[in-house]
Amino acid sequence: MFNGIYKLTKFTKMDSTNFTVKPIGYVKNNRLEKTDRNWGTIESRIELTDDFDSDSLDGIESFSHLEVLYYFHKSEKTFKGSEHPRGDTKYPKVGIFAQRKKDRPNHIGATIVNLIRKETKNLIVTNLDAINGTPILDVKPIFKEYLPKGEILQPKWTKKLMENYW
Amino acid sequence: MFNGIYKLTKFTKMDSTNFTVKPIGYVKNNRLEKTDRNWGTIESRIELTDDFDSDSLDGIESFSHLEVLYYFHKSEKTFKGSEHPRGDTKYPKVGIFAQRKKDRPNHIGATIVNLIRKETKNLIVTNLDAINGTPILDVKPIFKEYLPKGEILQPKWTKKLMENYW
Repeated sequence: MFNGIYKLTKFTKMDSTNFTVKPIGYVKNNRLEKTDRNWGTIESRIELTDDFDSDSLDGIESFSHLEVLYYFHKSEKTFKGSEHPRGDTKYPKVGIFAQRKKDRPNHIGATIVNLIRKETKNLIVTNLDAINGTPILDVKPIFKEYLPKGEILQPKWTKKLMENYW
Repeated sequence: MFNGIYKLTKFTKMDSTNFTVKPIGYVKNNRLEKTDRNWGTIESRIELTDDFDSDSLDGIESFSHLEVLYYFHKSEKTFKGSEHPRGDTKYPKVGIFAQRKKDRPNHIGATIVNLIRKETKNLIVTNLDAINGTPILDVKPIFKEYLPKGEILQPKWTKKLMENYW
């Protein structure tokens, strides 16, 4: 662990090296249980908590896409090593940071969604692969300047894994 | 706040509605202070903490790009409303969720980086806009299937904002 300049930093919100995060909103949709299929058909509403007013969403309707960070609240395991994605031996064993499994350190999910519309303090989105009741940690606008730079390479097993996912 | 199915969920890692997250690694690079320029020239090393072995990165070298979630540890403010990006009146006032400002609820940053190589428990990356010592919360592989679906629209001010950023 790096312990140079990091040590000098004043951490106001940390307990030792931990940080506390708090939901800024919750997902409401018709998907009550996690599955790995047909997420593209689901429309979700992101409802901000009482900590926020509608001004926190000012101008968001000028963006077509948002990145949603959320908490895998149904996961009660944390996997740290190397494992077959979905526990299925037709996929190669890969490390937790080489897959997008929910049972991961910190249990944070990140998905780029389509913004359909804003309704006061709510966002209506599609292509969010999070079940009803999922706590949301952040919403960020997508700028093309933050998309991947250069050619994207990914192993073949990911193509198989993602069949019928959306 | 949604309080239907959500209430039935067993939260093992929460204190009321809060969650605790812990760095999985730290950034090491030559950029000691935050700036909004020339991030593309910086090579960074992500060093995993002692909680992880090298198997957590197995197979990651088959991906060209990774998404890095990190904690804005130098931010001591949380902005919740609507504000000019970078406090500069040449940009319109927009809500915190319509911009990528670091002083945001939960202080989580998310950037897609290029993986240059893996070195045992370390990742050498470019295009990571995080200063030396930044705590890392997660690393996820980029699948094309998770990139934005459909045409990307963004307001003009973002183009100006991102000039010379990379």
